Amino acid sequence: MENSKVFPPEQLFDFSVRVFRHFGVPEIDARTAATVLQAADLRGIDSHGVARLHSYFDMLQLGRIDPKANVTIVRETPSTATVDGGNGLGLVVGPKANAIAMEKALAVGSGWVSVRNTNHYGIAGYYVLQALERDLIGWAMTNTTKLVTPLWGAERMLGTNPIAIAFPGLEEPPIVIDMATTAAAYGKIEIARRAGAPIPTGWAIDRGGASTTDPNAMIDGGAMLPLGSDRDRGGHKGYGLAVMVDVLSAVLSGANWGPFAPPFALRQEIPTRSVGKGIGHFFGAMRIDAFIDKDEFKRQIDDLIRTLRTTRPAPGTSGPLIPGDPERAAEVIRRREGIPLVGPVIDELLDISRQTGIPL
Amino acid sequence: MENSKVFPPEQLFDFSVRVFRHFGVPEIDARTAATVLQAADLRGIDSHGVARLHSYFDMLQLGRIDPKANVTIVRETPSTATVDGGNGLGLVVGPKANAIAMEKALAVGSGWVSVRNTNHYGIAGYYVLQALERDLIGWAMTNTTKLVTPLWGAERMLGTNPIAIAFPGLEEPPIVIDMATTAAAYGKIEIARRAGAPIPTGWAIDRGGASTTDPNAMIDGGAMLPLGSDRDRGGHKGYGLAVMVDVLSAVLSGANWGPFAPPFALRQEIPTRSVGKGIGHFFGAMRIDAFIDKDEFKRQIDDLIRTLRTTRPAPGTSGPLIPGDPERAAEVIRRREGIPLVGPVIDELLDISRQTGIPL
Repeated sequence: MENSKVFPPEQLFDFSVRVFRHFGVPEIDARTAATVLQAADLRGIDSHGVARLHSYFDMLQLGRIDPKANVTIVRETPSTATVDGGNGLGLVVGPKANAIAMEKALAVGSGWVSVRNTNHYGIAGYYVLQALERDLIGWAMTNTTKLVTPLWGAERMLGTNPIAIAFPGLEEPPIVIDMATTAAAYGKIEIARRAGAPIPTGWAIDRGGASTTDPNAMIDGGAMLPLGSDRDRGGHKGYGLAVMVDVLSAVLSGANWGPFAPPFALRQEIPTRSVGKGIGHFFGAMRIDAFIDKDEFKRQIDDLIRTLRTTRPAPGTSGPLIPGDPERAAEVIRRREGIPLVGPVIDELLDISRQTGIPL
Repeated sequence: MENSKVFPPEQLFDFSVRVFRHFGVPEIDARTAATVLQAADLRGIDSHGVARLHSYFDMLQLGRIDPKANVTIVRETPSTATVDGGNGLGLVVGPKANAIAMEKALAVGSGWVSVRNTNHYGIAGYYVLQALERDLIGWAMTNTTKLVTPLWGAERMLGTNPIAIAFPGLEEPPIVIDMATTAAAYGKIEIARRAGAPIPTGWAIDRGGASTTDPNAMIDGGAMLPLGSDRDRGGHKGYGLAVMVDVLSAVLSGANWGPFAPPFALRQEIPTRSVGKGIGHFFGAMRIDAFIDKDEFKRQIDDLIRTLRTTRPAPGTSGPLIPGDPERAAEVIRRREGIPLVGPVIDELLDISRQTGIPL
């Protein structure tokens, strides 16, 4: 890509750690936050890696995120907890809350944690991969700043509200589902805008609520469409899933839900109302051996993966992928060759470097 | 509708109970099964109500479902259980397994139950409405007989694998999400075939794997498409959700997953392999007050519902609905006016009546 440059993962990790440390984030938390960003960059989810570091930087610099926040349990049962993130970095609050879910799962079979007063937490996939390492089935959701219209709406009311869940194989790599509840990723609309290219129908509406293929029309006051796009093709289902994520993450924890989720970046407008604290996450963890022998489960997952791979391919394709395949393929390449950053992202990192004195 | 006739709900309920009793299903179980069917008919989900009674009848008559099955817990922790349905009616096994999830939630905050060796369980929405009555957030999923292709596949490998979850309001009716993970319901394709009408693109492929608008091409050896329909519009996401449902319901419990889920109706082919017992369900229940004050939660749900209803409408629409609105509207009418059945369904009930001697 034009103006892009490849960086060793360690270099970006060290830079991120030093930036977080610059604002007084404790060393261990800074390393956690940098690890979550790195996971996105390694897995090819460029929009959620160091490309977002400048937004975290802005929020820390303006004092809108507490670098030394305490993460506290405000209510709990043996298998559940409500966590207050103390308005800390989501990249730190998320892993701590996820750890609580995992501890509860180890103790009583499953653990479920709803989190309020937190901020954007990186890729949902990171959290479920943490669970996998402990032979747990991990779930992760979060609400996010509004970008998406409900089906039959003409304005932004919901976030892209991702859902992630993962299942381990024995010899096969895991099934990793990590999906926004929208028809397409916002990053793809930005890429189309930069390229001056149209977007497919079904991704977005303009500010009048009409279907559009112009990325500018979505970005300038339009909205993204939920998974399913329109009524005929199940747009009410993607909308329903987005509502589910908002309720589990934000209503259940006492965070801001729907259109009132606070902005992640400076360019985003401040909501007109506050109905809770910060944004919200939801984490789940279930012990596999609470349900079935661990190895038997993994053997069946191997069998399921191999069975799905034998599906007769649709014309012009090489057949179905397994959820997680593209990210795993990206990680193999990027661990070996480094992480490619486009010009505008490099400029943002250089700007942080200039303002903090931390060399890139 | 042509040849359709309206029946009082009680009449269909009593008929269903007597049909189940005819095969030796215990009275209490027969009433449970009829209640689940009735819930579908009342909520306007015609495909899952008494329209399916003949399929249950066939399976009972052929001895392929055990009318007196024992439902047993084969593994458990404080917050989880694996249940064996004893090859009973899903309409009986489902409510019993759901009750176990709810009991565990009342004891330790949440309960999660994966079920094997069971059969089709009616509408997923029924189970989450049961949880609502106890101030629990209920989840329900099930795998089903194969009908759906993975994205980029050209054959049926997965079921329509529904997901349901519900959240109670205080003054507002609940949010009830109950959705197959496909672009459209199979019933709509059947309706199009009967009407000789085309189906929208994005619903189905033909037996060669090509996109089709001919309902016959799907039904005769083609396949349904997952929610999102194609790669551009997120078809990999609907596929991922369907895989999630299959794993939680069937791999986790030891049931038959993916293309090996046994058939629900006589006309469906018997799978080439058996990889477990029966089909699988997955139920969850979470105590709302395990996370937050119950009334505070419900007030926020009311606020969320009212906020979503104020969304500026898309042109040509009256604005977004709340998930559950259409089913609730149907129920109001049908409780008052009765349940309309189309000619072919009435014929099936009359056939059962003739074979069993039970008057309709």
